[in-house]
Amino acid sequence: MDAAELQAFLTREFPQVAEDFIVEAVGEECVIRLRVADRHLRPGGTVSGPTMFALADVGIYLAILHRLGPVALAVTTNCSMDFMRKPEAGRDLIAHVRLLKLGRVLAVGDVLIYSEGGTAPVARASMTYSIPPREKPDPAKSDPAKPEAARA
Amino acid sequence: MDAAELQAFLTREFPQVAEDFIVEAVGEECVIRLRVADRHLRPGGTVSGPTMFALADVGIYLAILHRLGPVALAVTTNCSMDFMRKPEAGRDLIAHVRLLKLGRVLAVGDVLIYSEGGTAPVARASMTYSIPPREKPDPAKSDPAKPEAARA
Amino acid sequence: MDAAELQAFLTREFPQVAEDFIVEAVGEECVIRLRVADRHLRPGGTVSGPTMFALADVGIYLAILHRLGPVALAVTTNCSMDFMRKPEAGRDLIAHVRLLKLGRVLAVGDVLIYSEGGTAPVARASMTYSIPPREKPDPAKSDPAKPEAARA
Amino acid sequence: MDAAELQAFLTREFPQVAEDFIVEAVGEECVIRLRVADRHLRPGGTVSGPTMFALADVGIYLAILHRLGPVALAVTTNCSMDFMRKPEAGRDLIAHVRLLKLGRVLAVGDVLIYSEGGTAPVARASMTYSIPPREKPDPAKSDPAKPEAARA
Repeated sequence: MDAAELQAFLTREFPQVAEDFIVEAVGEECVIRLRVADRHLRPGGTVSGPTMFALADVGIYLAILHRLGPVALAVTTNCSMDFMRKPEAGRDLIAHVRLLKLGRVLAVGDVLIYSEGGTAPVARASMTYSIPPREKPDPAKSDPAKPEAARA
Repeated sequence: MDAAELQAFLTREFPQVAEDFIVEAVGEECVIRLRVADRHLRPGGTVSGPTMFALADVGIYLAILHRLGPVALAVTTNCSMDFMRKPEAGRDLIAHVRLLKLGRVLAVGDVLIYSEGGTAPVARASMTYSIPPREKPDPAKSDPAKPEAARA
Repeated sequence: MDAAELQAFLTREFPQVAEDFIVEAVGEECVIRLRVADRHLRPGGTVSGPTMFALADVGIYLAILHRLGPVALAVTTNCSMDFMRKPEAGRDLIAHVRLLKLGRVLAVGDVLIYSEGGTAPVARASMTYSIPPREKPDPAKSDPAKPEAARA
Repeated sequence: MDAAELQAFLTREFPQVAEDFIVEAVGEECVIRLRVADRHLRPGGTVSGPTMFALADVGIYLAILHRLGPVALAVTTNCSMDFMRKPEAGRDLIAHVRLLKLGRVLAVGDVLIYSEGGTAPVARASMTYSIPPREKPDPAKSDPAKPEAARA
């Protein structure tokens, strides 16, 4: 899936949060922007931990979809994060995502999160996703894991 | 701080999320309830990862405040989580929190999260908090880190 | 597998390290002792990080074997550890291990490590193991994953 | 400290393990080689988990020393690792280490470990170190935290 397909997938599958995230680039490294809004902030103007978790989680998920096509049922099984600096007030967050492993049953991704324009990462995350068994392709049958839009 | 003081602290300092959390018990183990609402759900009715992160994060923070009194500036520096089972639809989540370390500069807490009434944990988390240097008490001067209500 | 079977399994499969570990108890919680020797120490007499990692790793592995029988090919896929206090010099380390999940493909365990006689944990670990697919039992064929001694 | 100083520091402070590790390069990214020997192996010829932990731990420690000079008392407080592929038999392991944060009290480093010549990482680690308070420099007094060799 390319950037536009990923953005459409988010809008379709995760309408509650889709407008928070913009797929800026896909490839060896995927780049995802979080449009920081008031609802993401804690007192003092800093972006909340759960918001940074969500950015890392969505970022790795999209990097997996970029490689595999839509796998709507992939689930996060493990996460580790380091919160290293306070995000700068009034700036979007930019996540740089790499997939370190994309195996048959597990995928591992790595994320660095920056305040837009910053050079030192505000957070680091790695997450493991469990990938559901993929059925052998059967051209005669519609594949429920691959919605129409994604095959366009 | 006791359960009522912690609940009041949440309402005062984190008004955006305070109504999500109920302090059910404090002590060696602190018990925090997340009142699951639609905004916490993902498609399929499961509670989102960021919501479970938020519950673990708030739970350990409250366990620290229970022991130290209000330390409004303690910040999460590290988190690891395992997501082990799908939360049951339509049930609150209950976090059982233990502090494993409460040092001068770092605190480490451990959380098991259950669907209410369930016996197998849906998630496990451990988090490290950095505790700001505490000033030596100076009775002549108001301490901004200790709001009035907390000293009551 | 009971404690004696686990100890025999260690001796047979991991002869390089088996004498380091003693299976003290199995059950809901498994208890494994590390017999601390000079080779485990760092300058100052503290037990090295890799040694504590090894204790946690072996402990969770044994807790899985206790439940599943010998699964020689289970492999660690993820680990998180917090090192909270300096182990006391000249004391063995005691690991208390719980399995939080034992699924078809993944197992998650949790460990608290104490200096013998101590009441505050020196370290905490959680680890994920990937469990190899188990063949359907075939009484006509010898199963290489289940060595003879283990079935005794 | 440059590569030769780091190697000398290892030999002096950690004589039990110093010969396992070779400082190949220092800079933005530090590169550390683990000379794999029989004592690092598990049945089947794979490198043990504790050995990979040790490589990541030493690698980040050396990256901190490279920047700060000898801080013999920095201690690991947290570690997360993903074990993604089986190391290739008979090959050294090469760790690529970056410091993501070097604060006043905490440092965070990130490591990718490869089998020599391999292009896909066998493991990923991130670790937090607690840095002891540094005394204000006092030119009149010898600083016990900075051994002679390190100032050469």
